[in-house]
Amino acid sequence: MFKTTSQYRTESTEGRYGGKGVAVVSHVMEKTELLANCRLFARIRLDPGCSIGWHTHDQEEEVYYILSGEAVVNDDGVIRTVYPGDSVYTGNGGSHSIENQGSEPMEFLGVILTYQPPER
Amino acid sequence: MFKTTSQYRTESTEGRYGGKGVAVVSHVMEKTELLANCRLFARIRLDPGCSIGWHTHDQEEEVYYILSGEAVVNDDGVIRTVYPGDSVYTGNGGSHSIENQGSEPMEFLGVILTYQPPER
Repeated sequence: MFKTTSQYRTESTEGRYGGKGVAVVSHVMEKTELLANCRLFARIRLDPGCSIGWHTHDQEEEVYYILSGEAVVNDDGVIRTVYPGDSVYTGNGGSHSIENQGSEPMEFLGVILTYQPPER
Repeated sequence: MFKTTSQYRTESTEGRYGGKGVAVVSHVMEKTELLANCRLFARIRLDPGCSIGWHTHDQEEEVYYILSGEAVVNDDGVIRTVYPGDSVYTGNGGSHSIENQGSEPMEFLGVILTYQPPER
């Protein structure tokens, strides 16, 4: 199954997990399109000043893969600036947040793999 | 856990699944670093003329997400050229191949989600 950007369902979520501004979530794959234990496979855009707040991944793990721009990530208390090609793993009860403190939009892939079948 | 490109284990695989030339596989996440059912989370580079041959995904599914350049993908007999931001889903017994027929290197993320725990 082929998809292009125009075919990704895109939603603008405000104050995601208490974050600032808007996170624009484009669903590369819907969880209903996947048979595996995966509840999010999305490209997420944060414009300057926008963030996704601190939240915990119990019984699941998320991989961030940075596509463009830069962001400050707090991964379980360790804070770093991430750039295109970088990745962050947070899972098994770990927590994280991500904020665009730069001057350009930034995008990353967020893939959440669950340890049991997700609700579909 | 933060990672940058220099920390990804990178291997050059020749004639992958009968393909042409070399596929350079950078493991963004090792399967041993993931608790979920995932046996590949990698960035793969195909230089011009290089390809990954036709192969089948039984009891698993793979998502390609195109990062840069362009490639020709055969997904279960449907052949298309893919560009950055595009994705391809192949799974549950489906087959695919990918070839760089362009003049620039191309890169994509390949994520293989398995329906049972993978061998680790």
